[in-house]
Amino acid sequence: MAQSIDVSHISCPAPRRDHAQVQLGHGSGGTLTAELIRQVFLGGVAPAGGPLEDAAVLPLTAPAATGGLPPGQEPLRLAFTTDAFVVQPLFFPGGNIGDLAVHGTINDLAVSGAQPLYLSAAFILEEGLAIADLQRIVDSMHRACAAAGVPLVTGDTKVVDRGKGDGVFITTSGVGVVPVGCRLSIAAAQPGDRLVVSGTLGDHGITIMSTREGIEFETQLTSDTAALHELTASMLAACPSIRAMRDPTRGGLASALNELAAASGVGVVIEEAAIPLRPEVRAACEMLGLDPLYVANEGKLIAVVPEDAVERLLATMRAHPLGYQAAVIGTVVAEHPGVVVQRSLIGGLRMVNMLAGEQLPRIC
Amino acid sequence: MAQSIDVSHISCPAPRRDHAQVQLGHGSGGTLTAELIRQVFLGGVAPAGGPLEDAAVLPLTAPAATGGLPPGQEPLRLAFTTDAFVVQPLFFPGGNIGDLAVHGTINDLAVSGAQPLYLSAAFILEEGLAIADLQRIVDSMHRACAAAGVPLVTGDTKVVDRGKGDGVFITTSGVGVVPVGCRLSIAAAQPGDRLVVSGTLGDHGITIMSTREGIEFETQLTSDTAALHELTASMLAACPSIRAMRDPTRGGLASALNELAAASGVGVVIEEAAIPLRPEVRAACEMLGLDPLYVANEGKLIAVVPEDAVERLLATMRAHPLGYQAAVIGTVVAEHPGVVVQRSLIGGLRMVNMLAGEQLPRIC
Repeated sequence: MAQSIDVSHISCPAPRRDHAQVQLGHGSGGTLTAELIRQVFLGGVAPAGGPLEDAAVLPLTAPAATGGLPPGQEPLRLAFTTDAFVVQPLFFPGGNIGDLAVHGTINDLAVSGAQPLYLSAAFILEEGLAIADLQRIVDSMHRACAAAGVPLVTGDTKVVDRGKGDGVFITTSGVGVVPVGCRLSIAAAQPGDRLVVSGTLGDHGITIMSTREGIEFETQLTSDTAALHELTASMLAACPSIRAMRDPTRGGLASALNELAAASGVGVVIEEAAIPLRPEVRAACEMLGLDPLYVANEGKLIAVVPEDAVERLLATMRAHPLGYQAAVIGTVVAEHPGVVVQRSLIGGLRMVNMLAGEQLPRIC
Repeated sequence: MAQSIDVSHISCPAPRRDHAQVQLGHGSGGTLTAELIRQVFLGGVAPAGGPLEDAAVLPLTAPAATGGLPPGQEPLRLAFTTDAFVVQPLFFPGGNIGDLAVHGTINDLAVSGAQPLYLSAAFILEEGLAIADLQRIVDSMHRACAAAGVPLVTGDTKVVDRGKGDGVFITTSGVGVVPVGCRLSIAAAQPGDRLVVSGTLGDHGITIMSTREGIEFETQLTSDTAALHELTASMLAACPSIRAMRDPTRGGLASALNELAAASGVGVVIEEAAIPLRPEVRAACEMLGLDPLYVANEGKLIAVVPEDAVERLLATMRAHPLGYQAAVIGTVVAEHPGVVVQRSLIGGLRMVNMLAGEQLPRIC
């Protein structure tokens, strides 16, 4: 349901920054990361893979040397993604840097609509890392790959001097194939579409932060790290009209929605009351002064779906163990294009900007 | 030409190591790296991509959801590779960590026989890195990709705290397509095959080392960093019977030949007099106590080719700017399987083992 909202009175200072050095915030997934990508990495050039989706989707044309494709056959579309993982601590309730890396890369493929096929892993080890810790990490990667049915097929290992790394960094890359006809894009949202999230927000980020800070909860809070490709496959099978999916990792839901609003040229309105949050995440956010909209998730997704498919999509998601808490949290609107607004529990509106600084460094 | 050589009298102590912590040598590309891969990463499991080639070559079967492949059509074979780059210094004569990463990943695809199609890059930046340095690195990557005709299509950036990284680490991954009928493998060498190198050895490693040590030469020695995919394409077009190719990076020619000998179950004999070396590399190796057979190259390859094709291959390689110094350096033999032997300038034999320790840390 489109809404008419006047956002002109909400202030949104966009501080001008001119950094000569890399800051921690450049890795936040928020505005600083976006600036770095735009200014340094793209240098004003549009990326070859189209808009900055979680994975690039590319034609896999058989080269002439292979005999080419049979006439009339559509080339396969390859999804290709990469992510570096630098999370601290390496081990945390619910997972470690290894299965986190496997899940993260599978999820970037999954939310592009791809069937994940193969993964690679490159390790940067710090001299002095306990081999036993490395073994635990690698074992968890093998288990995560086996559970997901996506093999790790190639890798690399480098070692840096003590004090020049931090235990282990892992970069995983993944390839998959996008089914014919599947054209998900964060540039495809249209006014009237509904926004669905697959479950509670902030579990991963708050788990990491509370592990670092030594905060204990009455119940054990764990990272939501999980592979979403079976959930996304069932969603796409039930609702081929899904416009876009995204996994709100670094920068959280707020950053993902801002990217969607900007790429699609639409406004977004979310309802605070509708956003699923665990009580312990809500409490920790209040204690730590964090906004759960900016906290990272590692096993959740948001989907943009036409209004007429939303009930079918919810039913499909709720039938899956990773989607049983799925909820409609908002609506795409024609008003205030590029702007995300949250209606609070008591009805007030606030603008939800991209993460501006570094809320939670090294969260993934 | 097969040779009969008695290697039983040559001693080859293989020290038993039992490390509890990661050592710099675990990143050498030699025996320690191989041990780490075997013990920790593979855990006794055979890798899904077959023998440890530079890139995994995998069937790209269209999933059922895409409608599958037309009956009788061979699935595309995808080559997929990843490499982390941690070279120090970041900038060196002839290149920097950025174009080195682009070339290295293209080369891993190229020596697998693949046509490289797409690259990804993941950056791990240390807080405090000068943005201008990052810009120089990224610009050189764009130039290297443009020159090679292989686009960088997706990426990621993370930032770690000051003192937890070392300026910048880059992990590049790449995908390519292997032409129908091309079946290169380091397990395919046969007695009687000849070994061809594309040019002088050790240029990259000695450039890095002498930059670090402040050694100056009368002539400017530069890294050989270069993309080899056009050279390999012309080699495969002229000589489809090539059995295997490899780019001797970390661990140098010695490690690449040992992997070949072990994977193929053959012996290898190389002739010291035939190995192309720049005079300044020879001099630097003598001064630094390094063996050029173990020094890293970043724009060279070795090829294993049947005797009857070697002249045609040499002619093809010498017609290419990156192969004009190509030379036959040795022969595959049935004797002493798994063992590489070098005949010295004065006729003596010595066993050429894999790199055992850490000759040149952080060379790539």
